[in-house]
Amino acid sequence: MMNKKYLIPASLAAALLPSLAFAQDAAAPSFDEIGPYIMTTLLFLVGGFLVFWMAAGFAMLEAGLVRSKNVTMQLTKNIALFSLAAIMYWLVGFNLMYPGDFNGYFAFNFVPTVLEPVGLAAADASLDYASVASDFFFQLMFVAATASIVSGALAERIKLWPFLIFVLVLTGILYPISGSWQWGGGWLSEMGFSDFAGSTIVHSVGGWAALAGALILGPRLGKYKDGRVNPMPGSNLALATLGTFILWLGWFGFNGGSQLAAGTVGDITDVGRIFANTNMAAASGAVAALILTQVLYKKVDLTMVLNGCLAGLVSITAEPLAPSLFGSLWIGAIGGMIVVFTVPLLDKLKIDDVVGAIPVHLFAGIWGTIAVVFYNGDTSLMTQLTGIVAYGVFTFVAAGILWFILKATVGIRVSEEAEIEGLDKAELGMEAYPDFTRG
Amino acid sequence: MMNKKYLIPASLAAALLPSLAFAQDAAAPSFDEIGPYIMTTLLFLVGGFLVFWMAAGFAMLEAGLVRSKNVTMQLTKNIALFSLAAIMYWLVGFNLMYPGDFNGYFAFNFVPTVLEPVGLAAADASLDYASVASDFFFQLMFVAATASIVSGALAERIKLWPFLIFVLVLTGILYPISGSWQWGGGWLSEMGFSDFAGSTIVHSVGGWAALAGALILGPRLGKYKDGRVNPMPGSNLALATLGTFILWLGWFGFNGGSQLAAGTVGDITDVGRIFANTNMAAASGAVAALILTQVLYKKVDLTMVLNGCLAGLVSITAEPLAPSLFGSLWIGAIGGMIVVFTVPLLDKLKIDDVVGAIPVHLFAGIWGTIAVVFYNGDTSLMTQLTGIVAYGVFTFVAAGILWFILKATVGIRVSEEAEIEGLDKAELGMEAYPDFTRG
Amino acid sequence: MMNKKYLIPASLAAALLPSLAFAQDAAAPSFDEIGPYIMTTLLFLVGGFLVFWMAAGFAMLEAGLVRSKNVTMQLTKNIALFSLAAIMYWLVGFNLMYPGDFNGYFAFNFVPTVLEPVGLAAADASLDYASVASDFFFQLMFVAATASIVSGALAERIKLWPFLIFVLVLTGILYPISGSWQWGGGWLSEMGFSDFAGSTIVHSVGGWAALAGALILGPRLGKYKDGRVNPMPGSNLALATLGTFILWLGWFGFNGGSQLAAGTVGDITDVGRIFANTNMAAASGAVAALILTQVLYKKVDLTMVLNGCLAGLVSITAEPLAPSLFGSLWIGAIGGMIVVFTVPLLDKLKIDDVVGAIPVHLFAGIWGTIAVVFYNGDTSLMTQLTGIVAYGVFTFVAAGILWFILKATVGIRVSEEAEIEGLDKAELGMEAYPDFTRG
Repeated sequence: MMNKKYLIPASLAAALLPSLAFAQDAAAPSFDEIGPYIMTTLLFLVGGFLVFWMAAGFAMLEAGLVRSKNVTMQLTKNIALFSLAAIMYWLVGFNLMYPGDFNGYFAFNFVPTVLEPVGLAAADASLDYASVASDFFFQLMFVAATASIVSGALAERIKLWPFLIFVLVLTGILYPISGSWQWGGGWLSEMGFSDFAGSTIVHSVGGWAALAGALILGPRLGKYKDGRVNPMPGSNLALATLGTFILWLGWFGFNGGSQLAAGTVGDITDVGRIFANTNMAAASGAVAALILTQVLYKKVDLTMVLNGCLAGLVSITAEPLAPSLFGSLWIGAIGGMIVVFTVPLLDKLKIDDVVGAIPVHLFAGIWGTIAVVFYNGDTSLMTQLTGIVAYGVFTFVAAGILWFILKATVGIRVSEEAEIEGLDKAELGMEAYPDFTRG
Repeated sequence: MMNKKYLIPASLAAALLPSLAFAQDAAAPSFDEIGPYIMTTLLFLVGGFLVFWMAAGFAMLEAGLVRSKNVTMQLTKNIALFSLAAIMYWLVGFNLMYPGDFNGYFAFNFVPTVLEPVGLAAADASLDYASVASDFFFQLMFVAATASIVSGALAERIKLWPFLIFVLVLTGILYPISGSWQWGGGWLSEMGFSDFAGSTIVHSVGGWAALAGALILGPRLGKYKDGRVNPMPGSNLALATLGTFILWLGWFGFNGGSQLAAGTVGDITDVGRIFANTNMAAASGAVAALILTQVLYKKVDLTMVLNGCLAGLVSITAEPLAPSLFGSLWIGAIGGMIVVFTVPLLDKLKIDDVVGAIPVHLFAGIWGTIAVVFYNGDTSLMTQLTGIVAYGVFTFVAAGILWFILKATVGIRVSEEAEIEGLDKAELGMEAYPDFTRG
Repeated sequence: MMNKKYLIPASLAAALLPSLAFAQDAAAPSFDEIGPYIMTTLLFLVGGFLVFWMAAGFAMLEAGLVRSKNVTMQLTKNIALFSLAAIMYWLVGFNLMYPGDFNGYFAFNFVPTVLEPVGLAAADASLDYASVASDFFFQLMFVAATASIVSGALAERIKLWPFLIFVLVLTGILYPISGSWQWGGGWLSEMGFSDFAGSTIVHSVGGWAALAGALILGPRLGKYKDGRVNPMPGSNLALATLGTFILWLGWFGFNGGSQLAAGTVGDITDVGRIFANTNMAAASGAVAALILTQVLYKKVDLTMVLNGCLAGLVSITAEPLAPSLFGSLWIGAIGGMIVVFTVPLLDKLKIDDVVGAIPVHLFAGIWGTIAVVFYNGDTSLMTQLTGIVAYGVFTFVAAGILWFILKATVGIRVSEEAEIEGLDKAELGMEAYPDFTRG
């Protein structure tokens, strides 16, 4: 038996913990009433920090896949975009996206997020859901993922500040409005569209915004010359692999947390299903790309394997719950194959997507949203396509207009000299790896 | 008081969350009945994602400890082996390992894993355990760790595909069969063998498979020349250190989740004990190597400190619960010392283990399995030795046969030219750090 | 419906899980009694592993911000300091800091930490708090953070072993004693001082120890020459950014876990508030530095953005619960600005702080402790200043004396030759990036 002397005495604990003391004073509500609220709040917090971690994953993936002369810039964009997204989503995004009650298309609800008071009483809590703060924390991480997708595609040539202005509008206005159509209870939700954790709402939206940007920005200097595609290999595949593992880890929170409940046997078991399915789709996406690049090119291509893994994850995101493990396997595998086939296709079209973000997030996102119909009978192919088209048209057009305005006013592309010298020296005056000579 | 307008209304939440609505329709079971199931399922999910994260740890550790010309290959092997392990363990491994009822030696149970249905009712759940999906998710991460151990030891000279074929058999057949002897309720379990989280079942098994491979594959070119050991320093000690920290973090899930229960005061308190003990053994393993390399070589050797830390972790894995913190300290410290003494020993035997996986996982794993007898009275030295020998003989022989077959058929070693040029360029055509010249 | 055959039978599970069986034999206490204990213990374990992860964050941040010739040494210091801190905090620190009952200034309580017995019965548990092991695990991670702060500031010139001796005293004696004044229920706590998660108690204390060390150790050779500040850029900004993201992630555990309770609606909701506020302060700290460096220097400075983010986190650490999201925004933003203004100030004073640890942890820590008064009415500016001064005087004087003794006896600075050659080769004989030539 442990010596009680070494325990913090209850009296001291109570002194240190007013909230605990308070809870004991009140007639404590039973765990049958508050247990689900506590578990779901915990799910959002754990899921939220896992999705937060994806910001580091995108940063490492992109820093690893750009050339060393642009690494500092890519890192700067990633930490800046996350930080700005966090502020914009508080300022307007969260309440635009979850208005509660609106016309189904656009909520005129430009109000910053307000949290519950400190020490919320059980009687004042939404006991059938979770704490607002935890919900806000979780949802905000998703908008940051959308913005990260854009930064990868447009790397190595876009100016810092115009990019960040785009992020402000994307995360504060565009993503929340289109997100409200489904997750805010809007028209697509009423129509029966199904996108569990956001293959379309998060990933394709990021992909459409990136595609519009890539078209308007144009390819990197020398990428497509004399009819040939000039490979520009990433400077650090260890970082790119680390980034992929980070994203994979974060995706358990992304999909698992999107169950939005964890306090019943059914819900926590479903979260388990989602974890297992998400892992399977990532694995099968990676294996599909592994085998396919071996077959097609006689050599395994690590960057394709990494992107295949991510495409598997994007593919299962629209419906990570209903499929069997075998379903997740083939859905993910097709996602991985899509990447292997469409990365060269984009190059053929001279659309320069530095990290492969458009194949991974847009194309696999569309696939995943379609694949919902195989395992979830509550929707139809027509409804899914409606959603896909709606998000595509809205985001592509709105992002396109925004990119055009930015191009016409402040300009979005660095000078040729800066691009050749590298954005790190030219724009930031700071190299990422100053001690290592470049080959 | 917060304005309720900003809360998602319960009606909307119910619309978005059919499962929640469903749970409220049914006569909700009390938390006294379902609480332990929910908590243990959560333990598996959190433990599982932590052990998943170890895959990134192995990848970074190994990428940091190989020469820069082999980094892309090492990264490729790591993400591929994890992905294949995930598929094989679903296809056959999990049900081979946990057959429920069998002869105690080999379960003829080649059936893919099937998860519970969506929205499982409490009445249909194993309320005294956890969700199948969460259990599968957790257990699958362990098999991947076993395979990662092999990849590190055989780095810089083994061909990609033969290695991956080995992984398929190891993770789908060998590991599950031997695992079933103990964790599936087989003969070793009946005998009273004790290996809480797998010093032997996971780590030594990986180590034995690696040892068999290292013997059959032979050392790297030039490693042992003219009676001298030629040091081949790792290319990126920052990554190796990152990998060690990742593994350390993941180990809290590895050992803590192996409590297999978290819904009682005794269980969650035990999980806390395990976390504290695991941390202590890692720390003391690192400190032992720190002091010992200073004393022996007059210079601290960082790679030994990293491996000492990992050896401390492996050492405590067979019994992370019963020891006191002081017990964990000395068990881990001996693990760290074992590494410092046996790394040169392997070199003397001309067994080329690139990252030190055999000292860390095999030798410290044996030590940890023996150390169980000091704190856990339910087993005996004889029983522990029986288990150690059984796992050793089975894995070493089976893996040896498999390596021989692979060597005799497809070949397991790259050409001399490829090894000298580096596997990245020769086998994959893709360098990990193309912008940095090599010294 | 799932085939029950694939479930681990309850009988088998019981055989494997004696503790579970035991729990079922006893008259099981209700979740209303044990739920809070289980949730708070879980909070400490999850919070603890997140704060553990900060050790990796400090290691990567510092490895990225030193020159490549000192990276191995910086990594060695980081893993060694964590390991030694873990041992010292067990040996004396934890019980010195949480003595339960003492004179309020110094507890003569030099007793190693003892954990609860295995399979603790609910009747023997502190049901109004959490398991001792989980509490110990959580608190020990904080002391390691304090020591990490010191290692960054004194990088590139301090000897390994004298630094580690300093760590032993800091983590075993100095931090626990001063920590006991507040968190152990001592005189500052009685006075009403408020420092929720340790802006002062953890971060400023680390900062004061670093400042004393930096003054006594002196700047790096050539840092301040002919009245000019010679920039010595970090060798790997990708690692530095990774380290920052890791620290940001870990901070959710640092601040959130410091709620010290998670088993009531009020407590878990508060943890959610803390997560959201912590994230906001990090984001606003980064954005403040982003804008400010653009305005002041016409170029964004990534290292300032990273440190701005960390300063935002330090600033909110003293009171992450009470502020609104807007409050967190401006508190964090001022933290970020403090970094931008005080990094050059230290250089003007010829105090060489390699990674900016003193601005981030000491100056922003003081700011955060003062900012408490804006949102928490339970304290006053006078009380907060008293605490700030008390920690400052005690730590600066005690650390200063210790540095002086170390300097006078074993010496704390490497030779000029070693410093020029780099500590990796000179002191450790092992380069971090041996394959890459240095420019």
